[in-house]
Amino acid sequence: MNAPLRFGMIGGGAGAFIGAVHRTAATMDGLAVLVAGCLGSTPERALASGRALGLPADRNHATWRDMLKAEAAMPAGPRPDFITIVTPNESHAEIAAASLRAGFHTVVDKPMTRTAAEAAELAHVASSSGRLLAVTYNYTGYPLVRQAAQMVRSGEIGVVRKVVVEYHQGWLATDLAAEGQKQAAWRADPARAGAGALGDIGTHAENLVSFVTGLRLASVLADVTAFVPGRRVDDDASVLLRFDGGAKGVLSVCQVAAGEENNLTLRVYGTEGSLAWRQENPNELVLSPREGQRRVFTRAGAGSLDTARASTRLPPGHPEGFFEAFANVYRGIVERIAAQRDGRPPADHALLVPGPAEGLRGMRFIEACLASAQASRWTVVG
Amino acid sequence: MNAPLRFGMIGGGAGAFIGAVHRTAATMDGLAVLVAGCLGSTPERALASGRALGLPADRNHATWRDMLKAEAAMPAGPRPDFITIVTPNESHAEIAAASLRAGFHTVVDKPMTRTAAEAAELAHVASSSGRLLAVTYNYTGYPLVRQAAQMVRSGEIGVVRKVVVEYHQGWLATDLAAEGQKQAAWRADPARAGAGALGDIGTHAENLVSFVTGLRLASVLADVTAFVPGRRVDDDASVLLRFDGGAKGVLSVCQVAAGEENNLTLRVYGTEGSLAWRQENPNELVLSPREGQRRVFTRAGAGSLDTARASTRLPPGHPEGFFEAFANVYRGIVERIAAQRDGRPPADHALLVPGPAEGLRGMRFIEACLASAQASRWTVVG
Amino acid sequence: MNAPLRFGMIGGGAGAFIGAVHRTAATMDGLAVLVAGCLGSTPERALASGRALGLPADRNHATWRDMLKAEAAMPAGPRPDFITIVTPNESHAEIAAASLRAGFHTVVDKPMTRTAAEAAELAHVASSSGRLLAVTYNYTGYPLVRQAAQMVRSGEIGVVRKVVVEYHQGWLATDLAAEGQKQAAWRADPARAGAGALGDIGTHAENLVSFVTGLRLASVLADVTAFVPGRRVDDDASVLLRFDGGAKGVLSVCQVAAGEENNLTLRVYGTEGSLAWRQENPNELVLSPREGQRRVFTRAGAGSLDTARASTRLPPGHPEGFFEAFANVYRGIVERIAAQRDGRPPADHALLVPGPAEGLRGMRFIEACLASAQASRWTVVG
Amino acid sequence: MNAPLRFGMIGGGAGAFIGAVHRTAATMDGLAVLVAGCLGSTPERALASGRALGLPADRNHATWRDMLKAEAAMPAGPRPDFITIVTPNESHAEIAAASLRAGFHTVVDKPMTRTAAEAAELAHVASSSGRLLAVTYNYTGYPLVRQAAQMVRSGEIGVVRKVVVEYHQGWLATDLAAEGQKQAAWRADPARAGAGALGDIGTHAENLVSFVTGLRLASVLADVTAFVPGRRVDDDASVLLRFDGGAKGVLSVCQVAAGEENNLTLRVYGTEGSLAWRQENPNELVLSPREGQRRVFTRAGAGSLDTARASTRLPPGHPEGFFEAFANVYRGIVERIAAQRDGRPPADHALLVPGPAEGLRGMRFIEACLASAQASRWTVVG
Repeated sequence: MNAPLRFGMIGGGAGAFIGAVHRTAATMDGLAVLVAGCLGSTPERALASGRALGLPADRNHATWRDMLKAEAAMPAGPRPDFITIVTPNESHAEIAAASLRAGFHTVVDKPMTRTAAEAAELAHVASSSGRLLAVTYNYTGYPLVRQAAQMVRSGEIGVVRKVVVEYHQGWLATDLAAEGQKQAAWRADPARAGAGALGDIGTHAENLVSFVTGLRLASVLADVTAFVPGRRVDDDASVLLRFDGGAKGVLSVCQVAAGEENNLTLRVYGTEGSLAWRQENPNELVLSPREGQRRVFTRAGAGSLDTARASTRLPPGHPEGFFEAFANVYRGIVERIAAQRDGRPPADHALLVPGPAEGLRGMRFIEACLASAQASRWTVVG
Repeated sequence: MNAPLRFGMIGGGAGAFIGAVHRTAATMDGLAVLVAGCLGSTPERALASGRALGLPADRNHATWRDMLKAEAAMPAGPRPDFITIVTPNESHAEIAAASLRAGFHTVVDKPMTRTAAEAAELAHVASSSGRLLAVTYNYTGYPLVRQAAQMVRSGEIGVVRKVVVEYHQGWLATDLAAEGQKQAAWRADPARAGAGALGDIGTHAENLVSFVTGLRLASVLADVTAFVPGRRVDDDASVLLRFDGGAKGVLSVCQVAAGEENNLTLRVYGTEGSLAWRQENPNELVLSPREGQRRVFTRAGAGSLDTARASTRLPPGHPEGFFEAFANVYRGIVERIAAQRDGRPPADHALLVPGPAEGLRGMRFIEACLASAQASRWTVVG
Repeated sequence: MNAPLRFGMIGGGAGAFIGAVHRTAATMDGLAVLVAGCLGSTPERALASGRALGLPADRNHATWRDMLKAEAAMPAGPRPDFITIVTPNESHAEIAAASLRAGFHTVVDKPMTRTAAEAAELAHVASSSGRLLAVTYNYTGYPLVRQAAQMVRSGEIGVVRKVVVEYHQGWLATDLAAEGQKQAAWRADPARAGAGALGDIGTHAENLVSFVTGLRLASVLADVTAFVPGRRVDDDASVLLRFDGGAKGVLSVCQVAAGEENNLTLRVYGTEGSLAWRQENPNELVLSPREGQRRVFTRAGAGSLDTARASTRLPPGHPEGFFEAFANVYRGIVERIAAQRDGRPPADHALLVPGPAEGLRGMRFIEACLASAQASRWTVVG
Repeated sequence: MNAPLRFGMIGGGAGAFIGAVHRTAATMDGLAVLVAGCLGSTPERALASGRALGLPADRNHATWRDMLKAEAAMPAGPRPDFITIVTPNESHAEIAAASLRAGFHTVVDKPMTRTAAEAAELAHVASSSGRLLAVTYNYTGYPLVRQAAQMVRSGEIGVVRKVVVEYHQGWLATDLAAEGQKQAAWRADPARAGAGALGDIGTHAENLVSFVTGLRLASVLADVTAFVPGRRVDDDASVLLRFDGGAKGVLSVCQVAAGEENNLTLRVYGTEGSLAWRQENPNELVLSPREGQRRVFTRAGAGSLDTARASTRLPPGHPEGFFEAFANVYRGIVERIAAQRDGRPPADHALLVPGPAEGLRGMRFIEACLASAQASRWTVVG
């Protein structure tokens, strides 16, 4: 095993769900270690969070600008190999660009930015920087999502005709933001989040479809709603999809689906069969051939293809979950960085790490949905 | 137990799936007995089918016109109480109107007619006739579908916000009509069937939503497709739904969903919880409250409400299926006819039998979807 | 279609669950019609039940002895082809023997008798009578149970090593008999029922194992319990199984399994794979090969073998249930009687109808379990 | 967050499944860090494994005796807080005793030892040492297993009557040991493993029952088999259980259950309801009340009780799995050690960590099963 990479984190302080997830995911295989951070939106909060996590004082920064400057000045040994950005959406673009320009490989949570224009600009910065920009569409890390993608590529279900993707949650069924729930708060503010459900979970759904099918989304027809009285961002979207080449689909995202937890499901229907996967029971992937019996592929079980097999740690029947999937994305990020450092091609699984193209597409998807809903017509996804 | 009612059947001869289903359903509780028929589209086929079923020669008719005339002339004893019509969609309107005018209570398979105009006319005939006109949306007969409807009415899930209904089949994934498969053939002919998947299964899905939620569908935005090369009717439709009062929804019907069998599923999300039901495992209904644990209602199990309890024959854990659900619709039809005969109000479960209003709404739904798809815009459901 | 057979019924009057089930099952395909009965344990109840079912006065009998005598004296036209006996266990042997001796093909509900000695005697009577004696182990009628049996025979899972069968119900978790529940009452009386859970559901479990595996049960080691205070028959049994040839197994039956409905499940593990089936979702059979993906066989779906295909009425995805399975047993009974009448070999599916051998084996199983539990040792199943 | 504890590991080198699991589990929350090891059964393998994991040379030991001596001599700063032992069963007793005597808190994988006599002796050593001895029955770490235990204690299902526990795997369906598979090899050697399936997975099953029900197992009646020709240890056991107080049960463990992965399931039936849990889908726990609907408790979902809530990291719907459950056991171990160090009572969840009593009971269970199978009679679990 090589020495672990070093990384810094911006955002994700005490009490922030996603920051802790990134830290556990990045480190669970022993491939990376947190060495620096600016873990909060005010200097006080940032420094307190860093102390709580045991960061040494000189690597615990009050502002992200201080951090990028100080860490970039570090010598090669202790200097971070990459920076993870888990701030609210509004600041992704600025911080990520600064991180790339400071010479760091950069990981940014989804959605990549607040607007497609920002995303395009950031993609440009990434491209010129020669650094990796990864966007953590973490559901692509599930071994059986990777298996599904590879099965579609290999023709297992023939030509894709129809896709149905849903991402239903119930936690915003009431007005949590008004009740002061922290995570709900910034997500409910259009100025900070951009979109609501579309940005928070809609992009995951769009990305999952694209990742598995390899199809390019051409246009959308969306009905976008804020069901909870007083809410200023969408909490529901129903979207018809048309793909290049003639496939069609339906996407439903909802954060007021009372009684749902984190119900992301994908079904892909092709000329020769279909695939179904459900995030809440992620260790199974169902292939229903046009003829023949339904077959249940299990994580690490019989028939595992290479990128799936490279993305699992335990024998079949020993469930892996959300952390392990997220860690697979980091495993790919580490492999990409190490391969670049060592001047060698990365392992195949690392090629699956979502980057600027996927991030930009996600933003274009959001904006196309909002425009379509406004105009009540089919809208091209730029 | 009262003496069983007598019924005649038009259509549904040897080899016709739906005719046999109606006969089994109508008779399985001993509430009705087949006494006459014109069971085929040609005199030869009709007479042969009737003989095979053991109809006496004088009740076995060569044409439906002959049959209605002869049977109407029968004295009250042997005369049929009702006529079931299971011909291809194109002839529903004419035959059903004639049957009603001949004085028979009349049962017609869905979709009620080939066009909404025909349906409106037929509804008018039914209304003036004083006879019952029932449309066999058989999925309303499942006890737990009735339970769901009653739970929505009683406020169990609060105000409905979003509905997701799907009806996916795979049997038309290839061009069966071209291969000469009989059932597929007339369904694939626009002149005979009207619509394709929309008429065949789309109206079931629309009816299920309306039946369970009690909401009135206001407008649709549809994307309608014929995926199989050469097919002249739709085999797929993805439809956004808007209901009076602000609820929204997504409807997906597909007959090229390779690997699916008869996957009709409904989810209804309200402010206080959600309901989920799946036709392929119809003995369970899942209530997911906004707070609290998911609860699984079983057919005839704890918490069964009255129309559900009146629609079941076996203790919980002894599965009932498609026939029993279909028979529940007939049980209601028989009860409605008997109650009218006896001058008493029918039992509650019999009020659930779909009639002209539901049949007409189904036709308007189909036409609105086709018009919307043509125009790519939201279209009012008349 | 041939003219339906005629049958009479003894027992199973108003309010008796199993009588109504037999009538629906026997008639649902139009293959048989009820023409005579003695439908209750007292003359008053019997006659009232017969009237309620519309039996003509001369075919509605006050005692079973009267009935057998009168019906046997009928001329060939109206005379019943077979008699179904659904009285409490205690009288099965006497009535069935009398029915056979009166020249009727005879159907008796399981368990065949109250003791193994009675069963052996009855088997002898059946054998000498030249008449069919069928025992309604109705779970053998499920198409996928027949599929499983045929798959085991064809070597799909190799040599069977271990079997796990469970039949858990919760309806006797409290003392229903003391509360006067009718069905529970006679079942709870050792003099009338023989055994408790072992006779009521244990024999179903034993029969299911034998039917599917084809193995001969050699010996048992049982722990038999009456959990409910005051109950005089067993309401639970846990049994270790040893089969001829070296296979082993576990059987658990329980009627105090609070929260269970009718949870009969079977798993058969062989050298090359395993099969799993669950009565509460009977339209699926899961084959888990030693290598390769788990495969889900559906009723009437891809891969259906002949006896399974001959035992189904609807396309895949249209659920069949308990009645249809029960009706499959009657379909076989009718076919066996018709074939004998017509001097031809019966169709294959009719060979699956359980008869005296299966009924006797069930009684020996019960008695071996009770003896084993008494002695705390392995006991040969006679 | 406090500074992480330091630990050393004996056994579990390159290629050993369970060693890697322990390392990931111990470190995934950042609560512990590996500082020393003797990670292999020969000096060469041990040193190579330690180097591969990045251990510094002075903490990478050739033999476990060297390691315990050297590490015990370390000053308080770098000295390990605890030692984890993941060698084959045969050496658990000796090494664990030495570790405890060297002053280390000690973690040993299950089964605790090779014989009950060894276990009793080791329990004695632990007791005199004043050090923690934990036995990693890792399935007790699943949040919903803890939830189940707490629900049983709180009377949610009334008085327990019957328990059904199964642990079925298929990976030993053929003779992997003969084929040289490493993990299978030592497990298949009676001298090294003690028992086969009973030791490997049977003790997990026994422990799960005891943990959830709180019942004391009184006696067993076992049928123990080696199905694979030439195998010298059991690969299957079917066991009847009797508990103090009158509850009964069935335990089935099988490693030749072709087609199974890691199917550990538990059902507990009480007078008021039942609980069901399945390791392969561990984020759900089903409560079936005697009256009322089945309710599905989800990890971190509504109704989570305190020890369950303390054992989870992610919101409901974000699956956790095997690693997280295992990490919960380590979280308790760390808490116990920290609490002892700090002179405070440990948090409640840490009281659930299995120790010498559970380890000894597991060994007694194994020996009672083997003795019972030998004698074919009920055998007291000492």
